[in-house]
Amino acid sequence: MDAFVFDAYGTLFDVHSVVRRCDAFWPGKGAALSQAWRTKQLEYTWLRSLMGRYVPFSQVTREALAWSLAFLKLEKNEKAIDALMQEYLRLDTFPDVKETLAKLKDKRLAILSNGSPDMLDPVVAHADLRLDAVLSVDALKVYKPAPAVYQLAVEKLKVADRSAITFVSSNCWDAIGAKSFGFRVFWINRAGAPLDRLGFEPDGVLSTLGDLPVKE
Amino acid sequence: MDAFVFDAYGTLFDVHSVVRRCDAFWPGKGAALSQAWRTKQLEYTWLRSLMGRYVPFSQVTREALAWSLAFLKLEKNEKAIDALMQEYLRLDTFPDVKETLAKLKDKRLAILSNGSPDMLDPVVAHADLRLDAVLSVDALKVYKPAPAVYQLAVEKLKVADRSAITFVSSNCWDAIGAKSFGFRVFWINRAGAPLDRLGFEPDGVLSTLGDLPVKE
Repeated sequence: MDAFVFDAYGTLFDVHSVVRRCDAFWPGKGAALSQAWRTKQLEYTWLRSLMGRYVPFSQVTREALAWSLAFLKLEKNEKAIDALMQEYLRLDTFPDVKETLAKLKDKRLAILSNGSPDMLDPVVAHADLRLDAVLSVDALKVYKPAPAVYQLAVEKLKVADRSAITFVSSNCWDAIGAKSFGFRVFWINRAGAPLDRLGFEPDGVLSTLGDLPVKE
Repeated sequence: MDAFVFDAYGTLFDVHSVVRRCDAFWPGKGAALSQAWRTKQLEYTWLRSLMGRYVPFSQVTREALAWSLAFLKLEKNEKAIDALMQEYLRLDTFPDVKETLAKLKDKRLAILSNGSPDMLDPVVAHADLRLDAVLSVDALKVYKPAPAVYQLAVEKLKVADRSAITFVSSNCWDAIGAKSFGFRVFWINRAGAPLDRLGFEPDGVLSTLGDLPVKE
């Protein structure tokens, strides 16, 4: 049976509430802080993977926040940092998530995320999503877009070949990494960003999850 | 004999002239364009390395520029793109480079760079630097901070062990990657940036190359 595999943060879960809390703790600096934080968080996943120095996403996320506060010369308020990390455990899903998963109820459904289980399990439970598997790179100690990460989905979902998996991500580089690996891929481009130039293109570019072709 | 190994772009070679030309081609947008370009250039080296989809730095650099022009909704002017790529072949060295290399004349000196030979050889020739080796990741088809890149210097310089190499970079993540590998490392922090949180720290943080401890 065909499977649909979703990225988590930014694809199913909306991190906007984290942005809002950044602004509450550091008034007027929320947008700049959350942008630096997200950029650095991803950088650190790629750098640590290349260095062969994996640590869980929860630690990467804290370290990226510490850098971002120093970069913006903001007070390193431990209480605020704890509160922001807690916010990650109860993110809202995007409005089109529940309906899309319901339409796909005849398929096998999974999450494949950089998130470590200590971050991922609580947020999936909080959102009460019906999924066949929640897969974390933590099992492999390397981050996306290493091919081993996408291979994890092939093995755990026991599909015959990789093209039987449809992968969905709002991160263009993640979509391209999955396409390079051999999945059928949709990039959810909510923000109208340009396509990354990495040698591959998604099979489709959609502006919302609701546009996913579910009946085939 | 001990060796000093230098990163190229931003460490020995000042990319400011590229920034200035960006502004000449796209008035008022030079700073934003060159910042997006540099960020994306590095991202693409990390992503392609993780994907196992290496292409030379000259191609990564062009693709990062194409993305950045699209991101900033600027005209994709092929003549301007060619001119910017040419600019990379005749970058100035920072003012403290010649004097520092002269003070280190009793050591073995090398460059270890992401730059592909088609970019690196012309700029080194243009600057007329006296070096024992110009090493490019292109031999390995993977980018910094993969340990294999730093290992290349150990092999090519034929040092007994990696701690006999002093590595110098203005990129904090590169300095930390080299430290994680086992070099003695100095981070040239000209801009006063915060230290990256990646589990290792350079042996020293200097504001100019002139502060390198050369007599020991």
